[in-house]
Amino acid sequence: MTKPQTLKGFRDFLPKDMGIRNYVKNTLIEVFENYGFLPLETPALEYASVLKGKYSNETDDKLGYFFKDNGDREIGLRYDLTVPAAKVLAIYSNDLQLPFKRYQIQPVWRAENTQKGRYREFVQCDIDIFGTSSPIADAEIISIIYAGVQKLNFKNAIISINSRQVLFDILAKSAIEKDQNSVLQSLDKIGKIGEDGVINELKSKALSQSQITNLFKYIKEAQPDEKLKLVLNKLEALGLPDNSYIFDPTLVRGCDYYTGTIFEVSVTEPKIGAIGGGGRYDNLVSTLGGPNIPAVGFAFGFERVVDVIQELNLLPQANQSKTKILVANFGPETESNILNLVSNLRDKDIASIVYPDNDKLAKQIKYALSLGINYLAIIGPDEAKNNQITVKNLITTEQKLVSFDELIKIIN
Amino acid sequence: MTKPQTLKGFRDFLPKDMGIRNYVKNTLIEVFENYGFLPLETPALEYASVLKGKYSNETDDKLGYFFKDNGDREIGLRYDLTVPAAKVLAIYSNDLQLPFKRYQIQPVWRAENTQKGRYREFVQCDIDIFGTSSPIADAEIISIIYAGVQKLNFKNAIISINSRQVLFDILAKSAIEKDQNSVLQSLDKIGKIGEDGVINELKSKALSQSQITNLFKYIKEAQPDEKLKLVLNKLEALGLPDNSYIFDPTLVRGCDYYTGTIFEVSVTEPKIGAIGGGGRYDNLVSTLGGPNIPAVGFAFGFERVVDVIQELNLLPQANQSKTKILVANFGPETESNILNLVSNLRDKDIASIVYPDNDKLAKQIKYALSLGINYLAIIGPDEAKNNQITVKNLITTEQKLVSFDELIKIIN
Repeated sequence: MTKPQTLKGFRDFLPKDMGIRNYVKNTLIEVFENYGFLPLETPALEYASVLKGKYSNETDDKLGYFFKDNGDREIGLRYDLTVPAAKVLAIYSNDLQLPFKRYQIQPVWRAENTQKGRYREFVQCDIDIFGTSSPIADAEIISIIYAGVQKLNFKNAIISINSRQVLFDILAKSAIEKDQNSVLQSLDKIGKIGEDGVINELKSKALSQSQITNLFKYIKEAQPDEKLKLVLNKLEALGLPDNSYIFDPTLVRGCDYYTGTIFEVSVTEPKIGAIGGGGRYDNLVSTLGGPNIPAVGFAFGFERVVDVIQELNLLPQANQSKTKILVANFGPETESNILNLVSNLRDKDIASIVYPDNDKLAKQIKYALSLGINYLAIIGPDEAKNNQITVKNLITTEQKLVSFDELIKIIN
Repeated sequence: MTKPQTLKGFRDFLPKDMGIRNYVKNTLIEVFENYGFLPLETPALEYASVLKGKYSNETDDKLGYFFKDNGDREIGLRYDLTVPAAKVLAIYSNDLQLPFKRYQIQPVWRAENTQKGRYREFVQCDIDIFGTSSPIADAEIISIIYAGVQKLNFKNAIISINSRQVLFDILAKSAIEKDQNSVLQSLDKIGKIGEDGVINELKSKALSQSQITNLFKYIKEAQPDEKLKLVLNKLEALGLPDNSYIFDPTLVRGCDYYTGTIFEVSVTEPKIGAIGGGGRYDNLVSTLGGPNIPAVGFAFGFERVVDVIQELNLLPQANQSKTKILVANFGPETESNILNLVSNLRDKDIASIVYPDNDKLAKQIKYALSLGINYLAIIGPDEAKNNQITVKNLITTEQKLVSFDELIKIIN
């Protein structure tokens, strides 16, 4: 049989990868639940009609995994979590009390060009508040971003905040009335290509010199509009320090569906830009076939957050190996003793393993070290006779003879 | 736009469903990690060649979700977790230290007949030890089953244990040499159709009366073989009480790939039979394209475990609503106060929400109750002036005026 392969753009997550991924997932869930968000999960497969035509036909055809099932139904794999959430609001509106605060962390599938280092299966991590247009909801979402990056120990993360009204007001003052979204798309690149790059692009889009000059003039003079002020002035009461967020009138966010506040969070180290973004989208749910309800939400870029943790080595020690001790196998004579020991350790919630085979001790130690386990327990005939355990610290190589209670103390 | 639908056989898990599912998942993960098992995840999509022909061609065609991707590759959704795990062992054998103990909890997809109440997307929950034929490994797996049902608070769960050798020995003594697997399949139904039912089925399979008589005679006389004894006599040292398991010579387990010990765990209430099963399968990994390594493993029937929790109402109170308190909205005058309060509560890890709109108090209370929240905090102008909070227990309707510190004490 030929050696099997994993599909390009897909990944197997071995235990060392899973350590970081589970840490990120559990940390964010802890924050979300502390803010009263509730978990939601939706199926991987949906009717193609549920998924298609929500962004653009081109997106569907290029990025979607669509096929016919055995019952000749046109079905597809979800490629985001917003459309399925809108579906849930449409189907179960009687079971869900508004405002509905849900978080959803699940993989999505997109037939991306893998040469750009993109994955075809990746995790999305969405939080949204459906059913209120109160600026408190916008401020809560911004506050949860702050709590998230704090909990993940990301220093120098900064939340940029703007609103679509601020942008359209700047365009109006600059007498830019045609192709507004195209102009905003150019402006969106300011972080990547700089002000000069944006100016060149706008020239090529046939904007006049005075339009461009005015655009940057009004950007520099821009102030939050009334609605955005209502959001911003709640952040202090919610515990956000002044230096954790900034009003950024050049912030655009890709999606046209935003209707109000927009925001993004970035880290300065490593240089990977935004690690999440979101905003208010009061019309999307109804456009997606749901009832007419306002919404504001945010998505952490799960894979990017994982990258930051990896890059900056931010995985806490406790998450690196959960298994604390390997109980060595000394052969049949003391087998009951070692099984008894491992069972008693587990009863004390000390994650432990027993080596199943009577291999050489050196091999057993190598195995423990390969798993990041720091302690080795040995019960030979002498230890067994005296009801004792030899414990070896595999890092310092120090070892001593102890009782079970002393062993517990050493490990904790 | 027409109201969207979820595909037949697929489920949306609303927060109340997710509460139970997350509890089961987290409880089992805690047990698995306490036993030193490490997490593994594999992609939803694989090359069809990785998945196909591992059980039978009929199974592939009937149950598989196979299709061509944009690159014209034949791909499919995984329909179990064993084949992907074998793939991982084949590809990454250099990165994985043996024995490799992994757990894997992910959805799988099968185009089942939904009329039988089966789902087309359901979670599997596998643990396996790859790379050792030591009976300690078999005993460890049985011991983790016990730990799992204990942790889930399943009273009267019982683990049935047998081995393929015991079964083949019985068949040999009964002079049943032809169609042994077919005979075992009939025997497997003894729990459902009783001894008489099995006898009738065996008659229709052209077994002689003496073969059938002998079969049941030797079943009644059966004893664990030498290898199984080695497994069983380790269970006491691993902390399993005598009444938690039973040697059952009629236990067959469906899969032909088992080569040694087999086991199953059932609950007597509710009457849903086995909630998990497994055994030793020393040849499967190489058959699946992996290296030649022995293995022993077990899968909890995740969906059945969820059913038991639901049926017997075993979800612990603490998991029913994680949100402890709703901070009521009393209008603009005290808005900073309530935002401050909710922020301070969260800092103390008390999951809390603030009601975003200035609705009638009765509506806000109804909302809290719908989410299973027991406490309501109110800050009106008087409370704000005195730096106090009115806290209302929504169950007893008792309310009193307290300081922040007193509020924390009440909630904890």
